[in-house]
Amino acid sequence: MEWTITKNSKKPIYVQIREFIMNKISSGEWFVGYKLPTQREIATTLNVNRSTVKYALEEMVADGILETRGKAGTYVKNNTWSLHDNFVSPNWLKYLKSGSIMPNREITHSVHNYEFDTRLIRLSTGELSPKLFRQDIVDDALKTISSAPYVLDYSHPNGLYELREALCDYYAALGMAIEPDQVMIVSGALQALHLIALGMIQRGSIVLSERPSYLYSLSMLESLGVKVGGVPLSFDGVDCEALDLAAQNPKVAAYYTIPYFHNPTGTCLSDRCVTEVLKTCKKHRLPVIEDDTYRELYYDGHRRFPLKAFDSNQSVIHIGSISKTFCAGLRVGWIIGQKEIIGKLADLKMQTDYGTSSLSQLVLCEILKNGSYEQNLEFLRTELKTRRDEMLEVLENDFSDIASWNTPQGGFFVFLTIRSKVDMPEVFRYCVSKGVVINPGYMYDSKDVHTVRLSFAFLEKDEMRYALAVLKEAILASSEN
Amino acid sequence: MEWTITKNSKKPIYVQIREFIMNKISSGEWFVGYKLPTQREIATTLNVNRSTVKYALEEMVADGILETRGKAGTYVKNNTWSLHDNFVSPNWLKYLKSGSIMPNREITHSVHNYEFDTRLIRLSTGELSPKLFRQDIVDDALKTISSAPYVLDYSHPNGLYELREALCDYYAALGMAIEPDQVMIVSGALQALHLIALGMIQRGSIVLSERPSYLYSLSMLESLGVKVGGVPLSFDGVDCEALDLAAQNPKVAAYYTIPYFHNPTGTCLSDRCVTEVLKTCKKHRLPVIEDDTYRELYYDGHRRFPLKAFDSNQSVIHIGSISKTFCAGLRVGWIIGQKEIIGKLADLKMQTDYGTSSLSQLVLCEILKNGSYEQNLEFLRTELKTRRDEMLEVLENDFSDIASWNTPQGGFFVFLTIRSKVDMPEVFRYCVSKGVVINPGYMYDSKDVHTVRLSFAFLEKDEMRYALAVLKEAILASSEN
Repeated sequence: MEWTITKNSKKPIYVQIREFIMNKISSGEWFVGYKLPTQREIATTLNVNRSTVKYALEEMVADGILETRGKAGTYVKNNTWSLHDNFVSPNWLKYLKSGSIMPNREITHSVHNYEFDTRLIRLSTGELSPKLFRQDIVDDALKTISSAPYVLDYSHPNGLYELREALCDYYAALGMAIEPDQVMIVSGALQALHLIALGMIQRGSIVLSERPSYLYSLSMLESLGVKVGGVPLSFDGVDCEALDLAAQNPKVAAYYTIPYFHNPTGTCLSDRCVTEVLKTCKKHRLPVIEDDTYRELYYDGHRRFPLKAFDSNQSVIHIGSISKTFCAGLRVGWIIGQKEIIGKLADLKMQTDYGTSSLSQLVLCEILKNGSYEQNLEFLRTELKTRRDEMLEVLENDFSDIASWNTPQGGFFVFLTIRSKVDMPEVFRYCVSKGVVINPGYMYDSKDVHTVRLSFAFLEKDEMRYALAVLKEAILASSEN
Repeated sequence: MEWTITKNSKKPIYVQIREFIMNKISSGEWFVGYKLPTQREIATTLNVNRSTVKYALEEMVADGILETRGKAGTYVKNNTWSLHDNFVSPNWLKYLKSGSIMPNREITHSVHNYEFDTRLIRLSTGELSPKLFRQDIVDDALKTISSAPYVLDYSHPNGLYELREALCDYYAALGMAIEPDQVMIVSGALQALHLIALGMIQRGSIVLSERPSYLYSLSMLESLGVKVGGVPLSFDGVDCEALDLAAQNPKVAAYYTIPYFHNPTGTCLSDRCVTEVLKTCKKHRLPVIEDDTYRELYYDGHRRFPLKAFDSNQSVIHIGSISKTFCAGLRVGWIIGQKEIIGKLADLKMQTDYGTSSLSQLVLCEILKNGSYEQNLEFLRTELKTRRDEMLEVLENDFSDIASWNTPQGGFFVFLTIRSKVDMPEVFRYCVSKGVVINPGYMYDSKDVHTVRLSFAFLEKDEMRYALAVLKEAILASSEN
């Protein structure tokens, strides 16, 4: 082996080792299938550190030039790189595995992919049916906007001032006295959560939440080094004793909750429970992240109030959105909190995307002001109630023997609990094979093996009936095994 | 001291120590100004670890209950917490300092804040003047959109299919043969960069870029643990020998470049330099992140082609945006790359904001298809050339003795180099005191103390003249000292 490693070269030593090996292979001396000397031998010959040899070899294994055969050693796998121009492209595989954020959990990812497959019937989709989209309202708003001069430039870091004012008016009617500088506009509730996690929650912290919880379906928190701690649900909301106990862990950094028409279970906090949750969090000085996405979608005539409206000691960061109450495609939501917190989160948003679509903000501002947002809520309350009743009817007729469920007073979801033991991944696959997508409960609680979140907001009646028939088949088939 | 610490309690020991001290204070035994026993004494008395005592005390100092007086020890500062309901709110100060992302660098943050102060004259603003916004084009697009049925729901993770097709057509005319699944829609070029950094660049890596570079003005990369490595500019673009040398560092993970009408210097890569950059990156298997934001804004009749059009070995990730070429407020940009890379980045975008405004996407799709995007580009080329000439005229008349500058053939910026030694922060402050905001070169290269990025895109003629007069005053005042 005649080769010299130049130690004070600007070329790193591992690159020189790589070139040494490449040279051996391309000269034919080390042919495909050739067993390389051991790392120790190479290190001795080249007078370099063994760990550097190890690193160089690993890189070349990753590139497909060498292969390891367990303890048998390292072999030449490939000598054709020089023929392929493509070989010199970046090692994209390596890049795909890099970065600080992990890909979505497989189940979420696969459900997400099915979500955009229009050939499938999606009992899973927690969205309003396209039939419930009021194009007329948007068209009217666009006409009004176009009738006066406007400029679509970057908005203030907190978002369009007029929109924040309109939101202050909206919340004033709910007993929340807030100022525009306590509000920032985001591109939906998920971004709100992402910014809060990114900007305020330290790695290694725990965020408490109901169990099951929407949070468990997000891998984003995990990627940021934040764990989710589960608090059991109770008949009137969340188990506050369990919350009190869990909050004693010093790693707990916040409590995330969907207080009304909870995703995935449809649960609502009772008035008693609201007081109790706030008291408990106050006791532990724990910030409450209130995800208020579904509250307006009640069908029992009983308007509920945000936790933020009872927040006497500034514990609550409130997240709102129109994605469930008007349309998701405008991508507009908001965060309400103390001015300083909002300032920091707005700065963070500027760092990630320079703000939310000004056109979307103008549209929301207009429909809040001209009353059509409220008008749309009334429309949705009626429509969703009808859809809920249709689903409950099917369940009562066909599922009474095999499952139990709640009767939601608002929102999108019926949470189905299957009585017998089933293989949920198998149920999921069976449904897909019949063209139906479901959201198994284990997306929201990894230990949960016998629940399904059913959405009645997205499907039309016939599709919903077909999907539930398939789900029943899948459950029966799985129970028999 | 009668108090027992329960070691196997669910209540952490530091919380028990805190309660012990709170109890002493509220009972009046330890009054305001009282000097606490040393940490060692408390630890011995309570039979706990000294470091736990230290932690508890530090928390209480942060809360304003105790104070340290250097080596003199720890004192009771406040005993009124029980009177203030507010005391039990979360320790927001602690949360404001938490999170994995740092706030924007102070200079960036302060420039950003001034950017939204409409009372100031912003020579700094790298945006199109509101006067260059073509409301007529948007209004026409909205009318067309409203004339047919549509639904504003979540778009595909990669973005609206029709828009991606329209972009493929746009790039086909530039010699880039791409498919819609190689395109993803984002909310502007900054988000593109954020997603790439988040998803593909490992902590501890270096991203190379021109020096000075737009990248240096972003604290986002730093927050993600990614360093920026500078490559000097040359007369026909970037110094490729320096790039070659820098790329040998194994920590280098990518090369970020604005090839045409570079921000902040206005530099353009020559044809020779384009070839050389691609060759060098290919040699090092280094991904190129091409930020193609300004390319279309040429005024010399010479259309340039993206690096991606010459990318024989899939090295280039291409970023596009309409923020500089049409309007920023729609918040639409895109990433083009290999299908697998795009798939991962789209998954990541789904995790952070569930996609870009569908309404914004529909508008861009329409204006690309109906030709008004191209028509607007022609309009801007003429308008920006006039504005450039106006600025150059003022510079030639008033700055020849004190500075030198380039003559940009496109884009928004003249890069001014001041001849004498000046105190740039002082120049910045002087300008602000006269109602003018500038972007000092040190935003883009911390060692740069004698340059200013001048934008001629944003200000109207009179404002521009006033702002430059103020800048000249500031430079002269600073040079005299």
